[in-house]
Amino acid sequence: MCRARRYPNRKHEDRKWHPTNVAKTSNFYPVILAGGRGTRFWPLSRKKRAKQLLVLDGKRTMIQQTVARLLPLAPRQRFWIITNDDLRPAILQQLPKLPKPQVLAEPLGRNTAPAIGLAAFLLLREHPEAVIGMFPSDHVIADEKSYRATIERAVEIAAAGENIVVLGIRPSRAEIGYGYIEAGSNFRGDVLRVRRFTEKPDAEKAAAFVAAGNYFWNSGMFLWGARTLANALREHLPKTALLLEEIAAAFGTRRFAATFRKLYPKCENISIDYAVLEPRSAKGEQASNLFCLPADFGWNDLGSWTALHEHHTAKSRPPEGNLVTSAGVFFLNARGNYVHAPGKFVAAVGVSDLVVVETGDALLITTRQHAQDVGKVVKHLDEKKLHKLV
Amino acid sequence: MCRARRYPNRKHEDRKWHPTNVAKTSNFYPVILAGGRGTRFWPLSRKKRAKQLLVLDGKRTMIQQTVARLLPLAPRQRFWIITNDDLRPAILQQLPKLPKPQVLAEPLGRNTAPAIGLAAFLLLREHPEAVIGMFPSDHVIADEKSYRATIERAVEIAAAGENIVVLGIRPSRAEIGYGYIEAGSNFRGDVLRVRRFTEKPDAEKAAAFVAAGNYFWNSGMFLWGARTLANALREHLPKTALLLEEIAAAFGTRRFAATFRKLYPKCENISIDYAVLEPRSAKGEQASNLFCLPADFGWNDLGSWTALHEHHTAKSRPPEGNLVTSAGVFFLNARGNYVHAPGKFVAAVGVSDLVVVETGDALLITTRQHAQDVGKVVKHLDEKKLHKLV
Repeated sequence: MCRARRYPNRKHEDRKWHPTNVAKTSNFYPVILAGGRGTRFWPLSRKKRAKQLLVLDGKRTMIQQTVARLLPLAPRQRFWIITNDDLRPAILQQLPKLPKPQVLAEPLGRNTAPAIGLAAFLLLREHPEAVIGMFPSDHVIADEKSYRATIERAVEIAAAGENIVVLGIRPSRAEIGYGYIEAGSNFRGDVLRVRRFTEKPDAEKAAAFVAAGNYFWNSGMFLWGARTLANALREHLPKTALLLEEIAAAFGTRRFAATFRKLYPKCENISIDYAVLEPRSAKGEQASNLFCLPADFGWNDLGSWTALHEHHTAKSRPPEGNLVTSAGVFFLNARGNYVHAPGKFVAAVGVSDLVVVETGDALLITTRQHAQDVGKVVKHLDEKKLHKLV
Repeated sequence: MCRARRYPNRKHEDRKWHPTNVAKTSNFYPVILAGGRGTRFWPLSRKKRAKQLLVLDGKRTMIQQTVARLLPLAPRQRFWIITNDDLRPAILQQLPKLPKPQVLAEPLGRNTAPAIGLAAFLLLREHPEAVIGMFPSDHVIADEKSYRATIERAVEIAAAGENIVVLGIRPSRAEIGYGYIEAGSNFRGDVLRVRRFTEKPDAEKAAAFVAAGNYFWNSGMFLWGARTLANALREHLPKTALLLEEIAAAFGTRRFAATFRKLYPKCENISIDYAVLEPRSAKGEQASNLFCLPADFGWNDLGSWTALHEHHTAKSRPPEGNLVTSAGVFFLNARGNYVHAPGKFVAAVGVSDLVVVETGDALLITTRQHAQDVGKVVKHLDEKKLHKLV
């Protein structure tokens, strides 16, 4: 099935971006969810400088990289970003060429269902044939070519009917921090039907999942037609769908800001997985129209300082596994440490597997094993109302 | 033997300082050795801000405390400080009331024998009856009253003849980092004759020393008459003694600086223990006139970050043994850590027994076990000529 034949009315502007792929992706609209706080990168991450706004890999921030790697598939005019008031100014600064009205700040965080749902109703008005790709803003992709090729195939499947496509990451370890997708029968080529979405498993289950071979990590990247998504919301979250439709109807008018502020907080606070995907999968793999596209493009969600350490260590293989950002360094009998102290000379003696991160006002000292508990520090700071530090 | 009868010509100024003790200490001249670098407190300690110039306990620097606790025993005019060019400006700043010419900067570090020897020859010219007390500038004393009472007794013994008195610290553990004094027979009261000075022992020997009961830590605090010390140097280091005498003869004249700079580097680079005390003890405990005064005044040489941590933990008993200098703190599942990061909020998660010290330009990460290796960091910085960091 060739998108070029199906949608001959693609605009000229598309050609500028990626002439060879424009046929497949001419109705592709990336929606980037960028409202997360990413507290596990404290003290570097803050309320107004969340993980997606940090340079954690390469020279650009996570959200800049997210946009850049999707740009060959869609012109900037097609990008939407859902974030919050704390982060919007920095996002506009980091992505000055995106259309400002399409960088939306939720008046209140309501999880992914209302966020992506709003995008669906917004697009539905003027682009009923739009295929929406929902993307987290803070993940790393090693092989961008493979990533884009995968998305092109996903767009194709999503556009072919009331289909929902999820990109499933082939698991490389028995990770307990992710949800898994259990795949069922083959649909076409390597595209699989989805049998079930699972919650984060315990270690034993995770090991069984990996051994089974038909389980994939839920990447949080979904593709579906705007109409498909809107209909799914009307079916599974009817009240929220009505609210979102009303907000979308106000877009571009003077009353949009007030409407958004008034109605959005009334939406249900629920993830799209929980609201739509899981109930949909309960219909059975034939009826659900849920597809999993196995992905092998070197995905990493950089979920913690530990994940960041592992990611960079694998890439650059530093001596003794010590990864250091500093003005100078002397390590003696020290292994596997991650130290971020730009501008300082760092000396480490006789320490292993530590994570030490220094900013102008804070110093975090933990271990690679405990780095996932850094969120508890932020929770503590929130509770103590130490606003300057969060 | 009462010093009041023996030296009736004490000056009036003494009375101002400590009227009740003036009889015993009227000829007491404290000589404070302050040329050490204290590299084990890097990155806080630097060439121009050595350990003795740091506030490590209480509100004053180590050298300020050293002077303050001796002031009841001698007026400021009697204090001499031997240091170096790097440290002299800061010492003058910290101790502005001391007579400046008596804060001497060695042109080149030559260890303790020439340093204390120079003091002896300087004092000998105008105060032949002076009793010199040699004191390190960077130790902590818990019980200052007991400390002064001990010194008064030591002055008395030193003044009574060609006697040399060393303050011996009763060992509280089998420390391998100190030299020990082996005591022999009783001299008078609890004053013991010295049988032998020992090098730093291994763990087994140290345990045997502590068990034996007649071994004491060498505190580096010695008392002797200026004449006794001068004669000892003439006997054991005749060439150096001649040089020091020539330097001392120039003191107060225009040619002093040049003479000091020219002759001092020619002195032997040797400790007073090795040059005088050990050969003297070889004469046998009766003939050597070496006495050990057991001391129980809560002495601590704060030899490393670890020693500092233990000292303060014992004093203030902080929760979970975490000792933190910071603008705020949140510790979770963390024990026995020492963190110095003034002005920063410090969060520690799942770490134990670490030493983390932050300054404007450097960050040290080590463990209580490895803190004694911090000197190796400074050695590295010296070798790499990273002068700003040392």
